[in-house]
Amino acid sequence: MNKPKALSVIISVVVALAAFDADGSGSNVFSPYVNEAGKIRVPKNYRTGWTFLGTWSIASDKVEGGAAGFHNVYTQPGTIEAYRKAGKFPDGAVLVKELLKTKTGPLTTGKVSWGDEVEGWFVMVKDNQGRFKGNPLWGDGWGWALFKADNPMETVTTDYKAECLPCHLPVQQNDWVYTYGYPALKTKR
Amino acid sequence: MNKPKALSVIISVVVALAAFDADGSGSNVFSPYVNEAGKIRVPKNYRTGWTFLGTWSIASDKVEGGAAGFHNVYTQPGTIEAYRKAGKFPDGAVLVKELLKTKTGPLTTGKVSWGDEVEGWFVMVKDNQGRFKGNPLWGDGWGWALFKADNPMETVTTDYKAECLPCHLPVQQNDWVYTYGYPALKTKR
Repeated sequence: MNKPKALSVIISVVVALAAFDADGSGSNVFSPYVNEAGKIRVPKNYRTGWTFLGTWSIASDKVEGGAAGFHNVYTQPGTIEAYRKAGKFPDGAVLVKELLKTKTGPLTTGKVSWGDEVEGWFVMVKDNQGRFKGNPLWGDGWGWALFKADNPMETVTTDYKAECLPCHLPVQQNDWVYTYGYPALKTKR
Repeated sequence: MNKPKALSVIISVVVALAAFDADGSGSNVFSPYVNEAGKIRVPKNYRTGWTFLGTWSIASDKVEGGAAGFHNVYTQPGTIEAYRKAGKFPDGAVLVKELLKTKTGPLTTGKVSWGDEVEGWFVMVKDNQGRFKGNPLWGDGWGWALFKADNPMETVTTDYKAECLPCHLPVQQNDWVYTYGYPALKTKR
C-alpha cells in the first residue's frame, strides 16, 4: 500500500470511529443506548465497565431455601456519584437489570445460590425532558424496555404502561425505582 | 501569600499527591492496597470504581425462602479482561467480597431478598512472587484478610491457613477461587 492510500485508509477509520461511542455502537446526543426514534438497546460493556448497584434474589418454590433467580442491577460510571449529590438519577442515567438463572448447592458457608446464565435484561433510561412523546416505551420520566437473552438489540416491550409500570407501582413516589435495594447509592465506599 | 511561597506550597502538594494513589491512600510498587510489610486493607472506592463479579446468597434458616446474607464480589478495572485472556487472575488482582445483611419481603416479583448494611469484607490479593514470606496472611499465591465493618483498615485475620483456607479447599485446584459464581469471567458483555 502506498503512503497516500495508507493515509486515506487511516483517515477513513478515524472518521468511522468518531461516529461511534466507546461501546462500539451508534449514538445520539442524548444517550449512546437510545437511537433518534427512542429505540433502546442493552449496553454492551456493562459487566466490565459499569458500576454495580445491587442484587435482588427471588425465592425459589422448587429448591427449598434457594434462589430461583438473581436480578443484578448496574448503572454507568458517574451515576452513583450524581445520585449521592442530588438525591435522584440524572438525565440519561441507565439502569440495567440483568436477569440471571441461578444454581444452588451446599457450600462451605451453607446452602448457597450463585448466578449462572443470562435470561434477559430490563433497561430503564432516565429522561427528564419527555423526548419521545407518542413512543409507547417512554413516559413517567423514563424509557422502559425488556430484552430476551438472545436479542439485546431488540426489545420485546410494546407498551410500558401495561407491561412495566404495574411492577413499579409500589415505588411510584420514588421516581419508580426500588432504590432501597441499592446500598451503594446511600453508603460511601 | 507571595509568589515563591505559593509555588513552594504547590510543589509540596504535588509531591504529596504523587506519593498517594487515586484511592487516596499510601501505595507501594506492588499494590495500592498492601503496604511494605504485607498489611492489606479494604479498597475505598470499590462500589463506584470497580467491576462486579457476582453475588452469593446464603439461605436463611429463619426466613423461609429468604437470604440470610449476600456476598457481593468486586475486582478492580482490567481484571476481568485479563482473566478472559489468560484464564487466570493476574498478579496484583484484588477480590473484595462484601458481606451484606439482607432484608426479605413480598415484592411484585414474589418473595425477594435485597442487600442492606455491610457486615464486613473478605479481601484476597493475587501474589505470584511470594513477596511476603513469613507473613501469616500470605501464601498459596494470595494474600488473605477478613475485615469487620467498623474497621476496613485493620484485618482481624491472624493466620490464613487456619482461618481462610478451610472454606476454599473445595476449589484448591482452581487457584482457591470459586470462579463458577462469576459469570462475567467467562461470558462477554
